[in-house]
Amino acid sequence: MAQLNWGMIGGGEGSQIGPAHRLGALADGHFRLVAGALDHRPDAGRDYARRLGVAEDRAYGDWQEMLAGERHRADRPDLITVATPNATHYQITKAFLEAGFHVLCEKPMTVTVEEGEEIVRIAERMGRICAVNYCYSAYPMIRQARAMVRNGELGKIRLVVTNFSHGHHANAADAENPRVRWRYDPAMAGVSGQFADCGIHALHMASFICDDEVETLSADFASTIPSRELEDDAMVNFRLSGGTVGRLWTSSVAIGRQHGFDIQVFGETAGLRWHSEQPNQLIYTPLGGRTQIMEKGESGLHEDARRLSRVAIAHPEGFPLAVANIYCDLADAIRGQVRDGLPRASAGVRSIAAVHASVASARARGAWVEARPPMFR
Amino acid sequence: MAQLNWGMIGGGEGSQIGPAHRLGALADGHFRLVAGALDHRPDAGRDYARRLGVAEDRAYGDWQEMLAGERHRADRPDLITVATPNATHYQITKAFLEAGFHVLCEKPMTVTVEEGEEIVRIAERMGRICAVNYCYSAYPMIRQARAMVRNGELGKIRLVVTNFSHGHHANAADAENPRVRWRYDPAMAGVSGQFADCGIHALHMASFICDDEVETLSADFASTIPSRELEDDAMVNFRLSGGTVGRLWTSSVAIGRQHGFDIQVFGETAGLRWHSEQPNQLIYTPLGGRTQIMEKGESGLHEDARRLSRVAIAHPEGFPLAVANIYCDLADAIRGQVRDGLPRASAGVRSIAAVHASVASARARGAWVEARPPMFR
Amino acid sequence: MAQLNWGMIGGGEGSQIGPAHRLGALADGHFRLVAGALDHRPDAGRDYARRLGVAEDRAYGDWQEMLAGERHRADRPDLITVATPNATHYQITKAFLEAGFHVLCEKPMTVTVEEGEEIVRIAERMGRICAVNYCYSAYPMIRQARAMVRNGELGKIRLVVTNFSHGHHANAADAENPRVRWRYDPAMAGVSGQFADCGIHALHMASFICDDEVETLSADFASTIPSRELEDDAMVNFRLSGGTVGRLWTSSVAIGRQHGFDIQVFGETAGLRWHSEQPNQLIYTPLGGRTQIMEKGESGLHEDARRLSRVAIAHPEGFPLAVANIYCDLADAIRGQVRDGLPRASAGVRSIAAVHASVASARARGAWVEARPPMFR
Amino acid sequence: MAQLNWGMIGGGEGSQIGPAHRLGALADGHFRLVAGALDHRPDAGRDYARRLGVAEDRAYGDWQEMLAGERHRADRPDLITVATPNATHYQITKAFLEAGFHVLCEKPMTVTVEEGEEIVRIAERMGRICAVNYCYSAYPMIRQARAMVRNGELGKIRLVVTNFSHGHHANAADAENPRVRWRYDPAMAGVSGQFADCGIHALHMASFICDDEVETLSADFASTIPSRELEDDAMVNFRLSGGTVGRLWTSSVAIGRQHGFDIQVFGETAGLRWHSEQPNQLIYTPLGGRTQIMEKGESGLHEDARRLSRVAIAHPEGFPLAVANIYCDLADAIRGQVRDGLPRASAGVRSIAAVHASVASARARGAWVEARPPMFR
Repeated sequence: MAQLNWGMIGGGEGSQIGPAHRLGALADGHFRLVAGALDHRPDAGRDYARRLGVAEDRAYGDWQEMLAGERHRADRPDLITVATPNATHYQITKAFLEAGFHVLCEKPMTVTVEEGEEIVRIAERMGRICAVNYCYSAYPMIRQARAMVRNGELGKIRLVVTNFSHGHHANAADAENPRVRWRYDPAMAGVSGQFADCGIHALHMASFICDDEVETLSADFASTIPSRELEDDAMVNFRLSGGTVGRLWTSSVAIGRQHGFDIQVFGETAGLRWHSEQPNQLIYTPLGGRTQIMEKGESGLHEDARRLSRVAIAHPEGFPLAVANIYCDLADAIRGQVRDGLPRASAGVRSIAAVHASVASARARGAWVEARPPMFR
Repeated sequence: MAQLNWGMIGGGEGSQIGPAHRLGALADGHFRLVAGALDHRPDAGRDYARRLGVAEDRAYGDWQEMLAGERHRADRPDLITVATPNATHYQITKAFLEAGFHVLCEKPMTVTVEEGEEIVRIAERMGRICAVNYCYSAYPMIRQARAMVRNGELGKIRLVVTNFSHGHHANAADAENPRVRWRYDPAMAGVSGQFADCGIHALHMASFICDDEVETLSADFASTIPSRELEDDAMVNFRLSGGTVGRLWTSSVAIGRQHGFDIQVFGETAGLRWHSEQPNQLIYTPLGGRTQIMEKGESGLHEDARRLSRVAIAHPEGFPLAVANIYCDLADAIRGQVRDGLPRASAGVRSIAAVHASVASARARGAWVEARPPMFR
Repeated sequence: MAQLNWGMIGGGEGSQIGPAHRLGALADGHFRLVAGALDHRPDAGRDYARRLGVAEDRAYGDWQEMLAGERHRADRPDLITVATPNATHYQITKAFLEAGFHVLCEKPMTVTVEEGEEIVRIAERMGRICAVNYCYSAYPMIRQARAMVRNGELGKIRLVVTNFSHGHHANAADAENPRVRWRYDPAMAGVSGQFADCGIHALHMASFICDDEVETLSADFASTIPSRELEDDAMVNFRLSGGTVGRLWTSSVAIGRQHGFDIQVFGETAGLRWHSEQPNQLIYTPLGGRTQIMEKGESGLHEDARRLSRVAIAHPEGFPLAVANIYCDLADAIRGQVRDGLPRASAGVRSIAAVHASVASARARGAWVEARPPMFR
Repeated sequence: MAQLNWGMIGGGEGSQIGPAHRLGALADGHFRLVAGALDHRPDAGRDYARRLGVAEDRAYGDWQEMLAGERHRADRPDLITVATPNATHYQITKAFLEAGFHVLCEKPMTVTVEEGEEIVRIAERMGRICAVNYCYSAYPMIRQARAMVRNGELGKIRLVVTNFSHGHHANAADAENPRVRWRYDPAMAGVSGQFADCGIHALHMASFICDDEVETLSADFASTIPSRELEDDAMVNFRLSGGTVGRLWTSSVAIGRQHGFDIQVFGETAGLRWHSEQPNQLIYTPLGGRTQIMEKGESGLHEDARRLSRVAIAHPEGFPLAVANIYCDLADAIRGQVRDGLPRASAGVRSIAAVHASVASARARGAWVEARPPMFR
């Protein structure tokens, strides 16, 4: 199977997200990096691209230059990854989709719901994939959880409870730290702080595993460090379309939680539990039975869980390979093999709608509000 | 130190709570059982009391008979435990307090807020102790947590998050099981199901450790098993008087959680975590530092944690000895040594007010409501 | 059921073991303390006994006085607990057995194998119970493990692996600390240090669960703190009579292990795992299946596990109630109900023989030696 | 930095080890696959190599053909990975080293100690790197452990205890399963079964972290499934040169252990604990202090731990990236940056000597024997 051509925008030297995408794209040999506009400083970006093995003439200074240079090449990228600052996602994603490229966009896909809906429509019209990097959903045992729910192994899902709470912004002195401060400043971060940053991963996961969509929600936001304008702690109660009750807590002041992303799913006949720091196990309890530890790589897992694992049972696979799984699904999808676990633009716009709904609810002291974007009501 | 005399009402043969109280009262040798009205069937109660070593003439058929028989004895009980069905707590507790007995009442102390306030006033007027069996608060490491908060070791508390969720009522077929059904039937259980049963333990714990009181709250209740009139799952957001943000989830349909009572406390300079299934550890993380495992019995613990532990570090002490710790505090208090960790009638009435407030909020779709009883506003 | 009379020798004020025995004997109401010689200082012992509620004339200055005073009383103790220094166990146990008392002796039951065999024979001749306080074997889930093995639920047992390793004697400066020093000094501790102190609990547990006896062993002893004459770390490989392979590691310099007593049992068709710091769970894995968490109090446990648990599933029961379980079994046995889980003098002498065998093997650089006392070969 | 050229021998389609090496070599972009002889079936190997992007003329039918074709090319591989069946390692590694290639050899490096010593001498004479894939030693937190020991943060190391025990060969019916059977058949596996397969990873880890070498050992081997000629369970006691006491248990019949590789290191002033199923944490306890959880990615780690981690704290990195870390160290070493954590041929031959010593000791019923290869005595 021939390798696919890959282009990247953003993810320059020293960024955290760049290496994660490169490792994800390269790890399984599906993609090779052929073009890039990696930095907002044109020379630095060109230089870095070359050092990563990109040919001289395909190392670009900005995304417009890259779009112009690549759109008419015969060997143009099969996939463009957009890993630039949030506010630019919409414009770049739109431009490349309209030029007929498949795109993987970092979250959040856009800033407004309107922009998000437009991306969905463009991708559809162009017949191109627009994926969003909800990479946690690509862990093998999360795919297993979803397959079990779909297969009825838990019965109807009554309740989903998820947390994404850490303590990395708990230092009040960080009010002056620019790496933290912007996240709680509406001028830079938009309408929401912690919920938009981490909460939407959890909300996406809840609907992903339950294979259902968030319909309404009620939020309680708090700025536990008083100098913050945006929330650093949030609780969101929600309901899925099928009636499932949802509970989501997210915080950035939870000292002692490192990467406290976990989810619990409770159906009529069984419960499941998963924690992002031990992603290779899924804890399963049948009604009236004992709790069992399911392991990545055990025999009898559903196809998606098997396919997205590389090494034997109890050999842990971590976060970078969850990102790589997104690229595996993309490679398959580009080659024509439908991968319905791949998060698409529709998931992207739903998240943005939920952020805006949560902000509105929190301002209305917890009033229940519609969480769906207009196009999906 | 002479043993104290102890009388018990309720907790008859085959009940779960009777043995826990007897073990709690007897374990450390502080009390001896001298009188009892143990069963709603007079003969069964008298017979059982005698088999437990109560003298013939002090084994009573009902509490009225016991009150009449004991109130004027010179060797009357120093403490009366009330472990009868919920609806009778108020009447019995009131009668014994008014006769000058100290009382330990099972939770909930009363059904209505008005009754609860009356108990507080009677206890105060009579100069008698009315304790409520919030026994989880008597685990050594919970006392340690509270002492650390009081001592400023976590800074100002920003956030407290607690869960008390199990899956023991998750079987829809239990709609017909009388041992489960009554809990979700307003005719028998009152205004609230799971929140009144388990949630108030968690709410009490949050205010106990934070050494502060719940002021307002907003609730989302759900009956995930449709035949239930009362909630089997609830989320309550709250605020303590000092501004601490609170989050409480309680459920009885969380299959796979056995005794899922845990609490996390996040201050300005440190975080704490505790789980009721591993009660001898307290997990502590200082801001910017590593997570540390504090052990019951380690050197340097606060006095209350040291005092309420019986065996060396890493020799686990469990639930029955937490109940015993309530009796230790009661023995000390009766002998004149003030024990401010002992939950009193004021804690009892605050819980009842919080239950009624949660019900009101859930009915008003999450509106924020006053959570304090009138007497403490 | 009438309470039984209980007498105690040793366990004076300030000792660790005294409160554990009193709590164990009193917790379930089976025994009442009627006589005691609690301290090697006669007045202190008498005084303490009286404060514990013992009548004036039954508070004795030493065990000889107590034996003389009690042996002819009509209301003499049904059980004598011997919790004195190790070197005195043999003499006291022997004297009370010969006077027709049932005895519970702290471990080690005797110093020499010959003494141990004599105790076995006296108990048999007198028709009296001589139990040894291997209290860990009385945890409900250990009884469950043993019942599962007996019931064939694991198939033939191939392998048992157990550790009892802590770090409480890891401080080299403790060479001068009298509370630690004596344990590694042959003049005071006898032939073995850590293995005799903790290792024999693990060795007993291995044979207890496997329901089989240690036949041969090979030992490697080390004094990792050079000033110690006796071992502070030991590895013992052994074989049970039925061919089961055994591995036992014990250490007192394992910094970070608090009470590191665990056991793993591997049969032809399943494996089990238990850890003393989480004694209410038993981890079970069937061949080719998933690991399952068995909980004290779950439905379907074997009778011994059910009988020795007091509170509902997931309400932890700890070390003091394991000791109490020994007293429950004793009460039943005294009343005529055979309890074959109760560790008897035969277990006591087997442990002593294993200690001497380990010392001999370690001195012979690991040579395999006979581990059984002569009477059981 | 230019990419390095990489060639692979073995690791054909369907093998477990091939993908792990490819992912390891490619993940960080250090290497590109330019040549391969991937299968013992020449056509299958050539075909698979081409599908992995190897040029037509560099896809070889066997290693001899590859050696002939590559040795004189200007763009010949900078590194050759040998991932063929064990018995062929020696011959291939020797040939490529002698042709001046750097080699990464799978373990065991050779079958006999003599061959192993020869490889060490050839690598030295040729000035080429011969690395052995003890990949567990390349986890960031293992490098941290080693750096802490070297830095004196634990004081002198008294004791190291390690286990590598799983239950994947516990099914007696597998006596007929060819994938399992060969491992316990001396005709195919050589002198040792489980110890040579898994135990040597643990033994290497012990000496790696302690930065010291195994000098003597005593072994107890068992075939718990009677039809097996070679051991499926082994206990090895050992001593490091500096006097550290070592204990190693390895088993393949430990039902319920999935990948039970763990290590505990106990020094004069602190203890460490690590488990391969949660490789991103290192558990640390200072003498007299609390147990602390060290996290990959936390601030203040030693350089080797920082350098070999790719994503932020609490984003797990798993087994494939530990393999990738070996390739990172190799890339650095080839480029002239000394990486002394990289396991070399000397480690390879020490392991083989330890296997032969263990077999000899087990046959001599646990006699203590010299464990070092002659060249290092």
